[in-house]
Amino acid sequence: MADIIVVLGAGAMGAAITVPLADAGHVIRLVGTHLDAEPIASIRQARCHPRLRANLPERVMTYTHDQLGEAMRNVDLVILGVSSAGIDWAAERLREVLPPRVPVILLTKGLRGDGRSIEILPRVLKARLRTDHSGGICAIGGPSIAGELAVRRQSSVVLAGSEPALVERLSEGLRTPYYHVWPSLDLIGVEVCAALKNFFALGVGTAAGVLERSPAVTNDARMHNPAAALFTQALWEMGHLVWKLGGLESTVRGLAGAGDLYVTCQAGRNYRMGRWLGLGLSYSEAKARHMSEDTVEGAETAASIRSTLEAMIDAGRLVRTVLPLTRAIMDMVCSDAPVEIPWDRFFGQ
Amino acid sequence: MADIIVVLGAGAMGAAITVPLADAGHVIRLVGTHLDAEPIASIRQARCHPRLRANLPERVMTYTHDQLGEAMRNVDLVILGVSSAGIDWAAERLREVLPPRVPVILLTKGLRGDGRSIEILPRVLKARLRTDHSGGICAIGGPSIAGELAVRRQSSVVLAGSEPALVERLSEGLRTPYYHVWPSLDLIGVEVCAALKNFFALGVGTAAGVLERSPAVTNDARMHNPAAALFTQALWEMGHLVWKLGGLESTVRGLAGAGDLYVTCQAGRNYRMGRWLGLGLSYSEAKARHMSEDTVEGAETAASIRSTLEAMIDAGRLVRTVLPLTRAIMDMVCSDAPVEIPWDRFFGQ
Repeated sequence: MADIIVVLGAGAMGAAITVPLADAGHVIRLVGTHLDAEPIASIRQARCHPRLRANLPERVMTYTHDQLGEAMRNVDLVILGVSSAGIDWAAERLREVLPPRVPVILLTKGLRGDGRSIEILPRVLKARLRTDHSGGICAIGGPSIAGELAVRRQSSVVLAGSEPALVERLSEGLRTPYYHVWPSLDLIGVEVCAALKNFFALGVGTAAGVLERSPAVTNDARMHNPAAALFTQALWEMGHLVWKLGGLESTVRGLAGAGDLYVTCQAGRNYRMGRWLGLGLSYSEAKARHMSEDTVEGAETAASIRSTLEAMIDAGRLVRTVLPLTRAIMDMVCSDAPVEIPWDRFFGQ
Repeated sequence: MADIIVVLGAGAMGAAITVPLADAGHVIRLVGTHLDAEPIASIRQARCHPRLRANLPERVMTYTHDQLGEAMRNVDLVILGVSSAGIDWAAERLREVLPPRVPVILLTKGLRGDGRSIEILPRVLKARLRTDHSGGICAIGGPSIAGELAVRRQSSVVLAGSEPALVERLSEGLRTPYYHVWPSLDLIGVEVCAALKNFFALGVGTAAGVLERSPAVTNDARMHNPAAALFTQALWEMGHLVWKLGGLESTVRGLAGAGDLYVTCQAGRNYRMGRWLGLGLSYSEAKARHMSEDTVEGAETAASIRSTLEAMIDAGRLVRTVLPLTRAIMDMVCSDAPVEIPWDRFFGQ
């Protein structure tokens, strides 16, 4: 059954998901934000998304942000692909035009701290929509590099929400022979994993930088052993955070946790930033000198939740000894601390 | 407290572990098998292990297999680093010379099927030692590439056994500032993970080969999304097998499971064989043409347990629908089946 789907946000991920959506037979309206003038113009002119370097299907229609109201006509589903900083803007716009019964799926990842507790973005959005919105808010997590999805590589993701029937229906509707959408009822777990994978990829990436500045050895040994231990410790700490924030630890072993962390540690901006840190640069130096144009989501998440996380540890709502890597990465990206991996404090109970 | 440690097997892993053992202050006697004449000669002559391409510490003494009895004088601990095919030979030799109270740690990985059930190697060994052996049998698992350990890269592993005091004492005794040994009481879980990571790395590796023979795309997209989904499904199926064989699913999220699978998917023979399969060669072709000299442990494990695994599924002791990747890899490496990943049967309950 073809739905009318509005994708708000024409960045890499928003644009990429239109490919399986179009292949699944839906009517797709891709709406750029005020920052997306370039990709919208490029798609209109040549079907090509500049950052994806891939063509979008003919049936994907494009809209500019001032055309959002028009795009929403008879809409069945809204997918939000703005940056995490764009959530408030998007919420304000949707508040005006979103029909109460239309569900929203977030692709946007992030966490917010308010000094007392850490909130997932679907809840941040929910609180900003009209109180009569009853359509449900879901999210997609899992290993899905946008450029790969756009050229139809086999991709497996989870679609999470709290209403079983909705989650089941949306998962069914989005599936294609190469886009495998698995339902999950653990919205908190999926969203905490999705935000933290970027953060922890910063930590895993340090091994690559440390390797490059280490003395030569006789046998070309790499640093896969330390990277793997960092990866495992990241899963460990992710499990604790997911559990304490109300999600299921089993989610950490699935696509949203281990799967997405795996892919994020193979490539991407957060991993690259980790490499600079491992090479001995402070976060501020690395950002200014090498990644000034890049959004490093993991560092933004760190800044957004750090003081809340510390407050939760002080209040005994998180266990300090279980989070040595989290705190080491926080120190690196928020306080320009050097890379010092507390190997002997890993795997605490 | 310095111990006298005999390491039996002078392959890459047996030789590599002598480095942290020597650094921890122990007296190390490295005993080659009848297949290890070359490395033993090379270490004697130039301290260098040919496959590791790294020097062993001066304090590592070397013995040939016929000197095993001499090497065992006053021994406190035996570490077994033979290949999985060498376990029966090693058991026979140890039966003659192992003092009853001396514990054994296995580095050797593998599983044995007898048509009815699947057995971990510590139990295979136990059954072949003298009945009065009371020293305990433990095993080391986790992400530890031998060449990295030999040059003192940060490495984190688990030492598993069923006797808490012994596991704690051995973990303490083996630890160095770069070799982090964590105790575990889940010997079954650690050993099942350790053997299966090679098997599943074959599956993850197929993505690299499939990528190479796929049509060119506009944006140089790799195949990290499919590799990550295969990685996650591997953890999923590993969890089922560990649980059904009597281990703890939580082990799968730790160093022996996710950590070791991570490292095995970054490099190594099993991953390389997976790439050949992904490129379209049958297992027999790939083995004969490209890896005739290499031991592909994952394929050996497959051959060793396949019929038992099928019998256990038929008897309802394993759940067929939870193991689609396991069965697909079995078909590839035991029956020369082409790579066909059953994406839509993943993540079954």
